[in-house]
Amino acid sequence: MNNFVFQNCTKIIFGKDTENLVGQETARYADKILMVYGGGTIKKTGLYDRIMKSLRDSGIDVTELSGVKPNPRLSLVYEGIDICRKNGIKFILAVGGGSVIDTAKAIGVGVPYDGDVWDFFTGKAVPKETIPVGTVLTIPAAGSEASDSAVITNEDGWYKLGLTSDVMYPVFSILNPELTFTLPDYQTACGCADIMAHLMERYFTRVRNVELTDRLIEATLKTVISNVPKALANPKDYNARAEIMWASTVAHNNLLDTGRVGDWASHMIEHEISAIYDIAHGAGLAIVFPAWMKYVYKEDVARFAQFAKRVWNVDDNLFDLEEMALKGISALESFFSSIGLPVRLKQAGIDHTRIEEMADKCTMSDSYTVGQFKKLSKQDIINIYKLAL
Amino acid sequence: MNNFVFQNCTKIIFGKDTENLVGQETARYADKILMVYGGGTIKKTGLYDRIMKSLRDSGIDVTELSGVKPNPRLSLVYEGIDICRKNGIKFILAVGGGSVIDTAKAIGVGVPYDGDVWDFFTGKAVPKETIPVGTVLTIPAAGSEASDSAVITNEDGWYKLGLTSDVMYPVFSILNPELTFTLPDYQTACGCADIMAHLMERYFTRVRNVELTDRLIEATLKTVISNVPKALANPKDYNARAEIMWASTVAHNNLLDTGRVGDWASHMIEHEISAIYDIAHGAGLAIVFPAWMKYVYKEDVARFAQFAKRVWNVDDNLFDLEEMALKGISALESFFSSIGLPVRLKQAGIDHTRIEEMADKCTMSDSYTVGQFKKLSKQDIINIYKLAL
Repeated sequence: MNNFVFQNCTKIIFGKDTENLVGQETARYADKILMVYGGGTIKKTGLYDRIMKSLRDSGIDVTELSGVKPNPRLSLVYEGIDICRKNGIKFILAVGGGSVIDTAKAIGVGVPYDGDVWDFFTGKAVPKETIPVGTVLTIPAAGSEASDSAVITNEDGWYKLGLTSDVMYPVFSILNPELTFTLPDYQTACGCADIMAHLMERYFTRVRNVELTDRLIEATLKTVISNVPKALANPKDYNARAEIMWASTVAHNNLLDTGRVGDWASHMIEHEISAIYDIAHGAGLAIVFPAWMKYVYKEDVARFAQFAKRVWNVDDNLFDLEEMALKGISALESFFSSIGLPVRLKQAGIDHTRIEEMADKCTMSDSYTVGQFKKLSKQDIINIYKLAL
Repeated sequence: MNNFVFQNCTKIIFGKDTENLVGQETARYADKILMVYGGGTIKKTGLYDRIMKSLRDSGIDVTELSGVKPNPRLSLVYEGIDICRKNGIKFILAVGGGSVIDTAKAIGVGVPYDGDVWDFFTGKAVPKETIPVGTVLTIPAAGSEASDSAVITNEDGWYKLGLTSDVMYPVFSILNPELTFTLPDYQTACGCADIMAHLMERYFTRVRNVELTDRLIEATLKTVISNVPKALANPKDYNARAEIMWASTVAHNNLLDTGRVGDWASHMIEHEISAIYDIAHGAGLAIVFPAWMKYVYKEDVARFAQFAKRVWNVDDNLFDLEEMALKGISALESFFSSIGLPVRLKQAGIDHTRIEEMADKCTMSDSYTVGQFKKLSKQDIINIYKLAL
């Protein structure tokens, strides 16, 4: 187990009707806020009205910024920074999924910074402060509601880059599983692939003697795997939605990588796909992860065999761990297919033509290799894209 | 799953040599502190010198309060409060195990309070603030290093009572597994019984649909069970010590009871034993928990069967869940015995003579019933003590 520092102060308010507490929670921080959200969904479902009422009842003055899209854009971040500065706004409320929350986080670190907020994403500068961000989560997937990171896409060149900083944990996040009843099946499945990917990125480590976190990750994976089919069969199954929603947070709040080093190659390889083709991040992960696994499992067959046994209940074959490992990868791929996700690029309408370009961009952003479990060169990444065709 | 609020800001600094960071962490809060510790152990091991050097290097003025005993006493808490007030001290550093940390926490809430700090434990008053507490943990057991609670014994009548408050989370805790290499076997085993008890108090709930936290608790229990024998066989096994130490924190930092209602009867029943007989809390728990289980398992046989299957690898017998449940309880009892703990009162030199008195005190402190899994009357508690004889 490696040495580590762990601290996560995000206040989680979880359960039925909890969105009605947003006014009183927000009032601890500000009486003038920017509220960031996506399109019209929260208006259709009535969530917008309930939130506005709660904020109004607490005497909070709200400026709105809507129009956040999946794979959220830098241009909207600039717009938000501008609004906050012009209006002296010192708090951002994000109402939505990971794209909305990431937009809010990027605005948050951008407001007090003199330079271009994109500097933080390219590594030219490090954020030292933020204006506080609170969230009302509507899509369990990204885990951004209790994480220290954000991913933004720069339309100028379609670069999709992540930023991690201790200052970026939201101050509070409100999680009501009922808000996820209206998610379309495909979005539910994509969200779960994202949650599982966050867990697997952490699971596949070369650090030895990490038994507790291994087991905690397996526990969280098994919970997601058993509850996604229930949520798809009955979208208003509160219990299944609640398990998935709490798992999305636990998967990504950094507890589960204490003492270990995650891989994150699959995320980076996927980011290049969704930056160019604008497919759902979760769908991209369902395509990339099995391909990555097939390419790297020989680096530590025992770990992949453990994954197969403990997460997918693959029978022991201690004479042939490789067989176990491959059965685990196959079980993951079958599971993604069973919940309606693509597991090959061609199923998402993507062919080989831009593989070289994607591999180029992917390796540029991290000193020429990507990932920790196996350090991948540009050629490795091309090979993985080809395995995923 | 029940609605819940979860927030835990304790900064965990984990790993080899981390005690040398205590000066710089403490300096964020104060330049004049009270350092609380137990007897001479930390001087013998050299920990005292390393900590004093680190504090001195950061320019921190230290007043010492030593002499904390297991089942820590209220009189020492009063002394600490007095020292802090007289010297204008606004930060407490606890160096030790749960008793030391609990003493520091009680002093912390006592300093800014006008009345008698014992009011907080009897429920006459609620703490609104504390002076900050940091810790250097030497015994993985109580989980106090990242919890919101403390247990103190009032020598005037030997009342042992717990206090829980949001203000009581330590601001930082330093966890170096190497500091536990010198723990005697018996203390290592007692600590593990305490960790396991914290997990089981949370596990045995009547709240349904708590799959994620069920699985996280099982994961943590399995980790402790697999590592205690390793630590006993080789006290300097860093990896085993590290798993146990991190598990002690995860077991009690409140993540694992999100959405559920813990029981805590066994803790309360045990507190009466250790308050009167002054045995180690962990030893008392190893005696009480199996007896409690035998007394209550029929309230939810499926939960006990799941515990047997998932934690103790008891074979399925779906035609007879009760058989599975009893095998699980038996496995727990055998495990406690195997690591050198008493599992009957008589093994700890305790007979029946004060059972009535203990049951009386136990039910007095919680509106006449104790526990949530099954609400226990005084007679129930007498029966459990008798089962434990």
